Amino acid sequence: MQGIRSKFPHLAIEAILFLDMINIRYLTGFAGSEGALLIGQEEATLLIDGRYATQARQEAHGVKVFEYQDRIDGIAAVILEDGSKTVGFEAQAISYDTYTRLKNRLKGTKLRPVSDEISAIRAIKGEREIASIRKAAEISSGALTSVYDFIRPGVRERDIAVDLEFKMRHNGAEGVSFATIVASGINSALPHAAPSSRKIEDGDVVVIDCGAVYGGYHSDETCTFVVGQANDRQKEVYRLVKEAHDRARDTVRAGVPCSVVDRAARTCIEDRGLGAYFPHGTGHGVGLAIHEAPRIAAKSKGALEAGMVVTIEPGVYIPDIWGIRIEDTVLVKEDGCEVLTKIVKDFIILT
Amino acid sequence: MQGIRSKFPHLAIEAILFLDMINIRYLTGFAGSEGALLIGQEEATLLIDGRYATQARQEAHGVKVFEYQDRIDGIAAVILEDGSKTVGFEAQAISYDTYTRLKNRLKGTKLRPVSDEISAIRAIKGEREIASIRKAAEISSGALTSVYDFIRPGVRERDIAVDLEFKMRHNGAEGVSFATIVASGINSALPHAAPSSRKIEDGDVVVIDCGAVYGGYHSDETCTFVVGQANDRQKEVYRLVKEAHDRARDTVRAGVPCSVVDRAARTCIEDRGLGAYFPHGTGHGVGLAIHEAPRIAAKSKGALEAGMVVTIEPGVYIPDIWGIRIEDTVLVKEDGCEVLTKIVKDFIILT
Repeated sequence: MQGIRSKFPHLAIEAILFLDMINIRYLTGFAGSEGALLIGQEEATLLIDGRYATQARQEAHGVKVFEYQDRIDGIAAVILEDGSKTVGFEAQAISYDTYTRLKNRLKGTKLRPVSDEISAIRAIKGEREIASIRKAAEISSGALTSVYDFIRPGVRERDIAVDLEFKMRHNGAEGVSFATIVASGINSALPHAAPSSRKIEDGDVVVIDCGAVYGGYHSDETCTFVVGQANDRQKEVYRLVKEAHDRARDTVRAGVPCSVVDRAARTCIEDRGLGAYFPHGTGHGVGLAIHEAPRIAAKSKGALEAGMVVTIEPGVYIPDIWGIRIEDTVLVKEDGCEVLTKIVKDFIILT
Repeated sequence: MQGIRSKFPHLAIEAILFLDMINIRYLTGFAGSEGALLIGQEEATLLIDGRYATQARQEAHGVKVFEYQDRIDGIAAVILEDGSKTVGFEAQAISYDTYTRLKNRLKGTKLRPVSDEISAIRAIKGEREIASIRKAAEISSGALTSVYDFIRPGVRERDIAVDLEFKMRHNGAEGVSFATIVASGINSALPHAAPSSRKIEDGDVVVIDCGAVYGGYHSDETCTFVVGQANDRQKEVYRLVKEAHDRARDTVRAGVPCSVVDRAARTCIEDRGLGAYFPHGTGHGVGLAIHEAPRIAAKSKGALEAGMVVTIEPGVYIPDIWGIRIEDTVLVKEDGCEVLTKIVKDFIILT
């Protein structure tokens, strides 16, 4: 919390209000689903409702706990009690409605939007955080390799997803990073397909994108397989996406602009005339949220820093035919990167 | 979408912008995780990024699909193209940041906050929606009864949660409504405990709160058991919570104020001197979101209407000892209610 307070003078604020529950967990340890946090010059107050009274006292550290009946009333009361005249707030986490209602209660207080300062702090991971992501990646990679035998003609996408999620949970995941994607055949042409009742067929491309949560931290990994026998076009596009992935990964080190990492993957795919079929960014930060700073895309500003954890996930999706995506989660270091996900991304034919 | 347009004159708007992905799914069928929807007088436009181009064309009906590079640029362009001079927006779903950036791009357009009108539409379920919730409830109730044998001394809370979630998914759930709560012994004193590595002990109270997602719709049910042998205090408080649950349920029918339903449960618990240990509302609406309108709490405004689906979930939590909650999901009818969750809430001792 001292890291936040040190930014007060630069932001010209005397206190800051957090509503984003992930930021609140990051700053206090409280993992509930609703609440607010006011960090003032001297004191910090965690605001929660009655459901979380006991949990907040158990989990949160370095804060007073204030139990509210009505959230807006509670926040207004704590801000007035704190006495700060200019209070920063997260411009992306506060709704127009909440902002307006607070503003009406706090006529004498100036509310000032701040945003990127907070995500920048969370983007750089400490050792304990990296250990959690490493463990999450170990769980999801292990679970994914353990279901290889199950990926065969006649099995439904959703049954593979269920089995894989069960394995992750069984191996110690608190939850899954997101609804596991198992997209086969034509479904793999959708970057974000939900698992369906479609049965795997011989010759299918199968994209599996999954992650585990451990200690609140997420992992994210995508493998693309071919079942039975691969045709030349599948092999060719796989090699291309793998090359784009490797080139982007090889640019990763502290100080490199995020846009340069994206460019490395994108140029590779564009040079083969398939740029239109790579419709998303190359990666994103991963931590307490599955998507967080930094973004790795063509228009990204800013550069990588040591301690960031980001995905590298180029893909090529041929409309109505199939798609291929390869994704690793990597830790940025001064002189390169360490790949935290465990599955080697060679071309795999499952037979 | 005609239901929304019919509200334009009353709201004094010519178009409305949706950013809440659940509302967008409700109105168009598109189930992606990011996008926007503008409903104008004549046309409606679904805005998505490249990841969802194919999926949007497959799932969405009654809309044009517009693919953006930058979300704010895209929304501003579509609003200008539509030409409406006053555009409503969801005050609770738009962030201060997005609102401010849009306002700066749309100098000639008046942006007007609206909110409860939309949640009111979603609160009343149609036949197809009720069928999905009914199916979700069937899946989760069935899964929960199938793990009874597994709830015994020496088994960890988290292993019960994993097993139960696997059963739900295996029986056809697309996902779980929320991270399943399995709270035993002292952990049951927390209304929202996450499953831990604590092993069930003889004489434990065990609270299990779970739900399944089917067709996008959620179910929500809580059972409280005692393992081995129950003491008198446990039996007494169970009977009390059951009575509060039954009394609240018996008030449910179209036209009854939500606050009256809450009062029925609360009075029952207060009369026994335990009001301070019932720190949450009596229930909430359930649908495409696990929590949606209406709220059933002391300060709730508004009344139940036929077709609403709500939870009834009083609880008593004795700090640092144990807690008991009993929850059903019910469909409001003209002359009463139908309980959609399947497990009979008699006092159950698992031996």
